Formats: sequence, C-alpha cells, structure tokens
Amino acid sequence: MTRPDGRAADQLRPVTITRNWLDHAEGSVLVEFGRTRVLCAASVTEGVPRWRKGSGLGWVTAEYSMLPRATHTRSDRESVKGRIGGRTHEISRLIGRSLRASIDLAALGENSIAIDCDVLQADGGTRTAAITGAYVALADAVSWLGERKKLARPKAIVQSVAAVSVGVIDGEPRLDLAYEEDVRAGTDMNVVCTGDGNFVEVQGTAEGAVFDRKTLDALLDLAVAGCGQLSRLQADALAR
Amino acid sequence: MTRPDGRAADQLRPVTITRNWLDHAEGSVLVEFGRTRVLCAASVTEGVPRWRKGSGLGWVTAEYSMLPRATHTRSDRESVKGRIGGRTHEISRLIGRSLRASIDLAALGENSIAIDCDVLQADGGTRTAAITGAYVALADAVSWLGERKKLARPKAIVQSVAAVSVGVIDGEPRLDLAYEEDVRAGTDMNVVCTGDGNFVEVQGTAEGAVFDRKTLDALLDLAVAGCGQLSRLQADALAR
Amino acid sequence: MTRPDGRAADQLRPVTITRNWLDHAEGSVLVEFGRTRVLCAASVTEGVPRWRKGSGLGWVTAEYSMLPRATHTRSDRESVKGRIGGRTHEISRLIGRSLRASIDLAALGENSIAIDCDVLQADGGTRTAAITGAYVALADAVSWLGERKKLARPKAIVQSVAAVSVGVIDGEPRLDLAYEEDVRAGTDMNVVCTGDGNFVEVQGTAEGAVFDRKTLDALLDLAVAGCGQLSRLQADALAR
Amino acid sequence: MTRPDGRAADQLRPVTITRNWLDHAEGSVLVEFGRTRVLCAASVTEGVPRWRKGSGLGWVTAEYSMLPRATHTRSDRESVKGRIGGRTHEISRLIGRSLRASIDLAALGENSIAIDCDVLQADGGTRTAAITGAYVALADAVSWLGERKKLARPKAIVQSVAAVSVGVIDGEPRLDLAYEEDVRAGTDMNVVCTGDGNFVEVQGTAEGAVFDRKTLDALLDLAVAGCGQLSRLQADALAR
Amino acid sequence: MTRPDGRAADQLRPVTITRNWLDHAEGSVLVEFGRTRVLCAASVTEGVPRWRKGSGLGWVTAEYSMLPRATHTRSDRESVKGRIGGRTHEISRLIGRSLRASIDLAALGENSIAIDCDVLQADGGTRTAAITGAYVALADAVSWLGERKKLARPKAIVQSVAAVSVGVIDGEPRLDLAYEEDVRAGTDMNVVCTGDGNFVEVQGTAEGAVFDRKTLDALLDLAVAGCGQLSRLQADALAR
Amino acid sequence: MTRPDGRAADQLRPVTITRNWLDHAEGSVLVEFGRTRVLCAASVTEGVPRWRKGSGLGWVTAEYSMLPRATHTRSDRESVKGRIGGRTHEISRLIGRSLRASIDLAALGENSIAIDCDVLQADGGTRTAAITGAYVALADAVSWLGERKKLARPKAIVQSVAAVSVGVIDGEPRLDLAYEEDVRAGTDMNVVCTGDGNFVEVQGTAEGAVFDRKTLDALLDLAVAGCGQLSRLQADALAR
Repeated sequence: MTRPDGRAADQLRPVTITRNWLDHAEGSVLVEFGRTRVLCAASVTEGVPRWRKGSGLGWVTAEYSMLPRATHTRSDRESVKGRIGGRTHEISRLIGRSLRASIDLAALGENSIAIDCDVLQADGGTRTAAITGAYVALADAVSWLGERKKLARPKAIVQSVAAVSVGVIDGEPRLDLAYEEDVRAGTDMNVVCTGDGNFVEVQGTAEGAVFDRKTLDALLDLAVAGCGQLSRLQADALAR
Repeated sequence: MTRPDGRAADQLRPVTITRNWLDHAEGSVLVEFGRTRVLCAASVTEGVPRWRKGSGLGWVTAEYSMLPRATHTRSDRESVKGRIGGRTHEISRLIGRSLRASIDLAALGENSIAIDCDVLQADGGTRTAAITGAYVALADAVSWLGERKKLARPKAIVQSVAAVSVGVIDGEPRLDLAYEEDVRAGTDMNVVCTGDGNFVEVQGTAEGAVFDRKTLDALLDLAVAGCGQLSRLQADALAR
Repeated sequence: MTRPDGRAADQLRPVTITRNWLDHAEGSVLVEFGRTRVLCAASVTEGVPRWRKGSGLGWVTAEYSMLPRATHTRSDRESVKGRIGGRTHEISRLIGRSLRASIDLAALGENSIAIDCDVLQADGGTRTAAITGAYVALADAVSWLGERKKLARPKAIVQSVAAVSVGVIDGEPRLDLAYEEDVRAGTDMNVVCTGDGNFVEVQGTAEGAVFDRKTLDALLDLAVAGCGQLSRLQADALAR
Repeated sequence: MTRPDGRAADQLRPVTITRNWLDHAEGSVLVEFGRTRVLCAASVTEGVPRWRKGSGLGWVTAEYSMLPRATHTRSDRESVKGRIGGRTHEISRLIGRSLRASIDLAALGENSIAIDCDVLQADGGTRTAAITGAYVALADAVSWLGERKKLARPKAIVQSVAAVSVGVIDGEPRLDLAYEEDVRAGTDMNVVCTGDGNFVEVQGTAEGAVFDRKTLDALLDLAVAGCGQLSRLQADALAR
Repeated sequence: MTRPDGRAADQLRPVTITRNWLDHAEGSVLVEFGRTRVLCAASVTEGVPRWRKGSGLGWVTAEYSMLPRATHTRSDRESVKGRIGGRTHEISRLIGRSLRASIDLAALGENSIAIDCDVLQADGGTRTAAITGAYVALADAVSWLGERKKLARPKAIVQSVAAVSVGVIDGEPRLDLAYEEDVRAGTDMNVVCTGDGNFVEVQGTAEGAVFDRKTLDALLDLAVAGCGQLSRLQADALAR
Repeated sequence: MTRPDGRAADQLRPVTITRNWLDHAEGSVLVEFGRTRVLCAASVTEGVPRWRKGSGLGWVTAEYSMLPRATHTRSDRESVKGRIGGRTHEISRLIGRSLRASIDLAALGENSIAIDCDVLQADGGTRTAAITGAYVALADAVSWLGERKKLARPKAIVQSVAAVSVGVIDGEPRLDLAYEEDVRAGTDMNVVCTGDGNFVEVQGTAEGAVFDRKTLDALLDLAVAGCGQLSRLQADALAR
C-alpha cells in the first residue's frame, strides 16, 4: 500500500517551524505540516479576566480560525455570518486546553496569554499543526515575560505539548493525514502528547466505521511516536 | 476508597429509561443517570436538507441544550445571549455523530430525524446520558417510520450506541462520574460504544493531570464494561 | 354543544401542580393543564441589578421558552436562530408583570428571583399554566429566603396570582382552551387574577371576529371563576 | 381633580391626522396625539410571503419603532444593539393584529401591505396613536390598489379601527394618558375598537395596583367613547 | 443640457432648515434638500465614554439611519436584520468625523453629544443634507450647554461645516444631485467644507467611469461654491 | 525634515509582490509595503448572485479583515464579537469598488470573483496595500479563467488599479505613511489610480486639521506619482 505522497505509514509530512514570523507579537510561529500552514501568535496582557483576579494564577486561551480561501473552495467568513461555527468552537477549546497542560499558571502569575491560530492554508491536520506551533509561540511569550521579570516564578513552562492526527485508510493505520487521506479515513483520531510521552487529549471518531480495541491501540502507538518526533522539532526550533 | 454516593468504582448510578414521555414526538425518552435527567425527543420530517436531495440517503442530527436552572446555579439562556456556546456546539456535534453510527442512512431513505436532548437537571454525565437516551428515541422514531412503510429498506438501525463517562479521582479510575466527582477528576473521558463493544467515540481530556497509557487502558476497560450494561438497559427498555 | 374532550364550557382541564420537581432550584413546579406541561423554576440570587442597587427593593423577572418538540411539529430553537421571537418576548414580559403583582418588593429586600418557565409539552394555554405554576415556585423561593432570614420583612407574598384562557368557539364562551379549540377560537382572552378575584392582566384579542361588550363580560365571568378554582389548587399544593 | 394639561378626564388630547406626508409611500400619515408624533407609512408589494402563496389571501404586517431621541433621554438604537427589544416586538404584533381586523384579506387578493410606524416624538400613547394613524395609511394604500384595479374584490376595508389608552390616576379613570400621567398610572389599558364600537383588543395591566371589575368597566366605557371620537376624526381625514 | 428639475448645473435644490422640530432634544433640525428630508437630533449627556474620562475633552458621535419607506421601495429595517449595513456604518462615521471638525473638544469639556440623523424621505444627497442639518443641531446643543454654564470654555464651536454632493452626468459636472441624477452619475463626490472654504472631507468615487484631474478640479469648484451657499443658510437659520 | 525611517517625502516603502503564495486560490498575492503584509486571495465561482442572473455580466467583490495580532496590541475578532465593525465594512467596500474599475464585467461573463484581503501584519496603509495586491491576484484569476476559455470575451482586465496613502505631517505632505506617521497626520488621504493616471477613488479626511486647496493639490500630486510607481511594480510582477 502506498500513500498519495509516497510517505511510509508512520512518516510525518515535512514539518517546518518558523519563529518570530511577526514583528509585534510576543511570540509568533509559522508552522507548516506539508501544505498546511498555520500562523500562531501569542499575545501577552498584564492581568487576568475578572473572575480570576486575586487568585495569583495566570490564564491562557486560544482562538482558531481559517482564512476564507485556506481551503480548496472558498468558505464564508464567520464574522460576516455573525456567528462562530461549531467546528471552530470545538478546535479553539481543544487548543486552549492542550496549551494549559504545558504551563504552570501559578508561575505565570496574573498575566494572560492569548494564542491566535489562523490557518492560512489547509491540507489536513490544521488543529494538530496549530497546537504544535502554538506551543512554541507560547514558550516564546513566556520567555518574553521572563526576560522582563514579569513571571511570578521561573519555569512557568513545565512540559512541551505537540499533536498529530492518525487514521485508518483502507484498513491501514497511518500517521499525519493530509486532506486527501483525511476525507477517506473511516476512523480518525487527534492525539496531544507531552514531550515525555503522556497523553493530554485523545479524540477518536468513527466517521464511517466503528473501531475495535486493537485498532485503537495501533493508532495510539503511531500517534505517540509521531508526537515524539514533533517534540524534538519543537525543541530544535526553540534552541535556535 | 469510597465514592460520595457509596458506589463501587465500576458501578453505574441507577439508570432509568422512560419511553414515550411526550405525546407528539415520534420517539421520546426521559433518561435518568442518578439525578441527571435528560429529555430526548426524536422528530421525523419527510425529505432531507437541500445538499442531500436525490442521494437516496437520510439524515440524522442532534441538538443539545440545558435549561437555565438544570445546574446548581442558574445559567443565562443561549437564546437570550443570542449565541450558542462552544460547549453546546461541541456536545451537539458529538451526539449527532454518535447516533449516525447506529443507523444505515440508505435504509432510512430520504427522511430526516432531529434529536433534541434537553437537560432538565444536570448532575454530571449529561452528554453520555443524552446519547444513551437519544439512541432509544431514535430507535422508536425509526419504528414509527417502519410501521408507516416509509423506510427505504427495513433494518435501518444497524447497531445500538450507548455512552458513559469515566475518570480518575484521587488516582482511582471510576465509572459514571456524578458532578461532585467530575469537578475533582484529573483526567476525564467520555466513551461511546456500540452494543457489541466497538468504539464510536473516545474523548479523553487531562483537565488537571496528564495520563499515561496504563491509565488510559484502565479507563477504557471501565468504559467498555459500563457501555455494555447500558446497552442491555436500552434493549430492555425497547423490549417493553 | 360538546367540547372535544367532553368538558363543560366552564370546566378546567385536570390540573396538577407538582412541587420540588427539581433538586437544585429554590422553588420548582411541574404544572400540568391537561396535556400542557410546564416546568417552572425559581432561582434566588442575592443582590439586585445595578440600576436598582441601594433602593432596598427586590426584583422578580421571568423567562418563558418552549422546547423544540413541545409542539405538534418541531420548531427551530431560538438559541440557534440567534434571536428571541416576538411571542416569546411578549409572554416572558406578561409572566414577569403578573408575578410582581403578588409580591411586596420592599419586603423581599435586595434579592432577585428569576422564574424560568419552560414548556415541555404544549397543548394550549401554556402562558396561563406557566403563570399559575410560577406563582407556586415563587412562593416556595420566598419561603426559602424566609427560612434563611434573608427577607427584609416577613410576608413578602401579598397575594396569589393565577391565570386562565377563555375564548369563543362557535359562539360559545369556553374556559381553558386546549390547542384544538384555541386554533378555532374567534376571540381569545388571557386573564390573570389575584386570589381574591381582582384583575392583574386582561388581554383579549379578536383573532378572527371582533367582540361586543356582552361577550367580553361573559368571558370575564368565566375567567374569574376559573382563576378562583386555580387559586384553590395553588393553596392546596402549598399546604401539602 | 385636574389633569396636568387641564383636560377633562374623558377628553382626548388635540389629534391631527396629516395624510400623504411622504412622496413615495402608497399611503402615509403623520398622526399627532398632543406631542406624540408618529409617522405611519404603508408599503404595497405584489405577492405574499411564500407560506401564503396560492391561498388567494393578502397579508398585512406592521413594524413599530422609536427614533432614539423620541423620548426625554436618548435610547440606544435596536439596530446598533443587534436585537429588537420585547416592547418593540409586542407593539409591532399588536398593531399588525389590529389592522388585520379592518381588512378582508380575500378582497385584498395576493398583495402584501407593510405598515411602518416610526415614533418621531413620544409623549405617551405611542402605540394607540400608531394604530389610529396606521389605519388611515392602510385605507389609502388599499385605495391606491383599487385605483389600479389590483384588488381581488372592491371593499377590502371592512371597518375602521382606532385605539386609545385609558388609566387610573389617583383613583380617577382618565382617557388618553400623556407621558406624565402614564408613569403615575396604577392601572393602564390600551383598547382597540372598530368604528361601530366593537372590541378588537383589550389589554389591561396592573402596573402598580390590581383592579376590580367596576374599575375595568369604567375604563372600558371611557375607551369606547374615546375610540368613537377617533373614528370620526379618521373618517374626516379620509373624506378630505 | 437641462436637469430633470430644470435647475442650472451649479444650483442647489431648495433648502430649508427648521430648528427645534422636536420638544425634548437639546438641538433638533428638520433639514430638507428638495424632497430629501432628514431629522437631526442632538442629545447631550454629561460625562464621556470610559476610555476618555479624565482627559478634559468632550466627545461627539453621530448615527445615520433611514426609515424603511424613506426610499422608492421599502427596505428591511437593520434592527430586524440584526445588523447594521456597510453603507450605514460608512455614513455614520463620515458625519461624526465631519462634526468633530467644527468643535473644540477641550472647550466642550467632559460632555458627550450624540447626533442622530434619521432620513424620513430620501431623494439623493441624504448624507450631505444630514451633515448640513446636524451642524445646526450641534450648534444649538452647544448653546444649550453654554446657557447652563456647562462648557469648559466658551466658543466650543470653532467653525461651521456643510456638505454637498457633486457628480458628472453625461459629461457635465453638476451640483447637489437628486436621486434620478445620482443613479446616472459616472463619477460621484461628497465634499464637506468649513464655513471659510477649507476641506474637511473629500470623497470621490468612480461608480462607472474613472475621472481625470481636470474633472476633479471642476467638481471641487462646484462643491466649494455649493458649500458656501449652505454655510450662509446655516448662519441665517442660527440667527433666527 | 526627516521621516522616521529615513525616506524622502515622496518615497514609497520597499514594496514586494509575491504571486501564487497559496496553492488552492485561482490568484493569490502576498503584498508587502514595508512591514505591512497583506494576503490577497482571488476565488473564482461559476455563476453570479441571483439578482444578476441572466444579465451576461460578472461580479467582483472584496472582503477585508485583520488578524487579531496584526496590530501592536491584540484586537478582538469580529467573528467572536458577532458583528463586523464600521472600518472593516468601509474598507471592504472601497476595495470592491476599486477592483471593479479595472474589469469589464461583460467580458468576464457570468462568473464571480471574490477577493479576500487579510492583513497578516499592519504598519499603516493596509487598505492601499490590499488594493495594490488584490489587483494582481484579480489579474491572475482572470488569466486562470481565460486559460480555461471561461471568459465571455478576452481582455476582461481593462486597466490596472493601484492605491497609496498620503498625508500631511508637521506641515509636510508625505507619501505612503507608516503607522508611526499615520497617527500623527493632521490630514490623511487614500487615492486609487488607474495605470494611466486617472482617479478611481479619492478619500481625504481632516483627522485633526482641515486642509486648503493648495494642500489638496500637493497631496494629489504625490499620490498620482506614487500610484504610477506601484503600477510599474504590478506590471513587473505580472510579467514574471
């Protein structure tokens, strides 16, 4: 069996992580998983939302969005429709939860970091690329705070997070699905792992065919290995 | 270790499934998981949305909502706020996907079934109770169509689906969390299974603590067993 | 002339008032007028809206809504449409005004009570059932405040309120119209009375045929008698 | 007892009805009840809404709105707030129902008439002034259709409708309340009558004090007499 | 070449400026440019928006809107549609900027003036009529503040502003286009000038045909002369 | 006098036009004016909006938006706020009108082209950069149609359009303002020209100081020269 782009079943697409793509943001990354291209911008604000004031804890949120022509055919803007779609909501919440697993909110102190993940081009795996890039932008924003002595404690980042999609195509478990594979996948799973291989989120969906425990195990194995590679790429990018 | 309500770690709350709770709906169920109480109503319409016309396939959707005072303190209505929240969107989509796994849309023919899941009282596990009850309402609505010779083919229901939550509290994996446990869970997972024990959805989230593979395996074991019990309760209810 | 359900022209449908239907709300009632079924939940909050602070006066509001499949055919959710319809607005305001007639806002002190009336099943007279049930839920919420010594003065409830619909069908004035009669009514009136027979609201509408003073008088007589019966049922329920 | 503007208890404010205040509308009236000033414009469209097509029946709707500075202090625009308030909804529906009582929709044929009632200045009684003026604009729009042979049958107007407010101030029933009186009224009622003295709508509200049958009767007497005068003013205006 | 209404190319339509058209507003003007009729109401509030507090500066804003039947065929209300259209937004912003050029916000002190421009009837040039009328309403509102000693300094009005449209029809530059000409104009320009002939806004648009520098110069000459005439009419109105 | 970045008063910032920045869009350009960076994507659809069907004419629209962290501090998303702001509306309309001046809609035939201009980073002049880049994306989309023989006639592009901002800073007219200059500009003008030097749009605004005819003339001279340079850069890019 061969994949449309000739990859092995357990092979990632070419991944690039470009830091400081923007001039104004405290952290910013252009992340590419093959032709999927997501701009992640981390914005720091002093203070926290009202319901959190006085807690000593910081706050991290995320918003995900797609440009209208990120996709093969143009989609209407959610701002023009006047409402956010369910998919956008769902992914924004997933990214936010994932990033909060990487940070010690007490060490962050009463600062807020908003991460905007805007998909400039979509070719499958936009949410996992977004999480992977957003972690790097978040780490840069935390460093920015650290350099300005604005953290409550050092080491606000406690562990890295990265994410990848896996799925079953024609009975074969595969890593990091591109759009062409994604639409054909019977089962589809997004997995978020920490740098040391623990799970943050596991979201498996039987789009067309239910799956048994053995398939689930195979998909989890693939995903954990893929997240491991992505963690190393994140570390390399942050070391540069 | 004891649970607040004295249950064993692998024990469901008392579950009741009351069919035909409404007079007008083609299928309706009041489902109770302990104090969680969800009204599931299945509404049949002839025809399908425009984008699906002529396909010969039916369509099944779901909408989830909570009454303002389902919870311990009153929440504002989404109709008054003028927008649906992310959580509502996310759960509505989960219920719809889960139910579509139980049905052969070609056998359904060009009919639409909308399932409304309204939480009358919330005490943890509202989405899993909703899926479990909604399946029974859906089955009744399909029977209603069958009795009127409106199905394209018999046997439109291909398998049952049921759902349950599991989580880790103080290091112990537990089944079917009530609200009091849910807020204390470090890891929280919702699992949707078919009647023969395959997976439809696996959604695990590290609210406070990441989880390793061993914990994930233990949670999946608990959930599969719990869904098995719920499947039998669904079958009993449908047999009455 | 006979009514579809065999009632006399001046006869109410079977009415049941079930208190404490919910576990969390400070007052809650499931009220049934025949097949019309409305869940009324009273939620107490300390404090009042900003524009009322320092006045020493409390505040009582109401919100009315219908579940999508309360009716014969499914209606779209107002939360999904993103706006509240005119009918919903109108009835919510009517319920709020009616309940405020029953309470001494100075005795209530700076507390707010929100009454949610959610129609689980509709068969005509949903707004009058809602007012009748909501009064009982309100009374329970006020007792809840009293038991906790949170009222500014005792006796915050100054009089009961109950409501009923009346209408002219085929020239005959009738009490408490069910849906089947309601759609055929030329003239339709909703009347809210206090327990001692005074008027709080009189809303008469010529849907199809204008009405003369004599008809108006006959309808008012029917309504006052019907409200009297409902007041006794409310008192009985509160005495239990 | 004297009224702030020296009127007798059963006396209307000076009323003027100016037809053809606009150049484009098929019917238009500037109606003034004292300082209350409402612009009523009737717009004719061929055809009816989709749900009414093929019925042979026409359709009449109304929309009510206030300019931001119609009132003593400026109110925010509903277009800017992005939603219509409950009061606006309620009054628009009242005006529409009232006008439909004056017209034979079968004689109108499949034409639609939309009546816009925009309050340029408010000094109490805006909804009753709106109904009174809107009837005249509607009659002109129907004549416009008649002159162009576009009615299904002649005599589409079957009776006139007019409206007035009444209320109890310091125990005295009074006709046509100006704003200063309106805010002090314990009981407040809006009554819509046909030209021959039958009721179209009766909407009585105990703002501060409940009312007995005797008071209700006195208010109805006042209102019927007031509507009689308004009907004559409408006839005079249409005769000019 | 003759214009539809017989005017010379550099001739304004008959302009009338009626002050104090409303009883409640601190300044109000009904301005007419031919059949275009705009009601301008200036509302004074003590204080300024939060972001401006403590600056010592006042604030002036404007909102523009059209009644549904101001135009030849009825338009839907923006309040009913739930959103403000692009054209409304654009014109509201233009009026606000123009008026702020006429006022010394430091002299105004921390007071806010909101100018509502509601088009009662539209026949071309509604935005320029609105600016011209709004200036007079603003001047009256400032006088109102001055009489009550609420200005930080006298002379808060530093210069008058007036506006007019110009356009090229069949190759001929013309002043103050009525609707019939406006729709045929290849090039269309709105110009706002101060009383002493300087520019506040120049907005030229090639609707159908691009324009060269010579045409631009001719249009600017026409517009400056037209604004000069309007400034004198404003001064006359304010002197009355 | 020196500009913050050392440019001469009549000098553009470094401008780059990168074609085909996206893989899916029929035309796409990343345009940079200094640090201002706008992604312009042209999307072709067969057919035109309903109101234009059968006319034989095509349609071109544009939508402008800013990413939340394009600016120095983060702005809220309009999709989250649920409404489009006035500035966004205004600029989208400006871009659409400008582009329509470059195209022969009859030659385009019944095809629609939507141009999305998303500001990835903002440093002044985003709307003029957007127009300049969007023209190139539009030209590419028209070529795409031409290559597929889908144009009604060849030469659908009749002339190029480019845009630039000019303004007066400390009394000096300057070309192509960066953000730092823009906020200090008393007078600010955006000018859209065709490749042969005619005007499409002239939008001048006195933010802080009104301007006389001589200043206006100087600004127009600067802008025409700047647009000339941009037209050559567009032609070069399209020739590559």
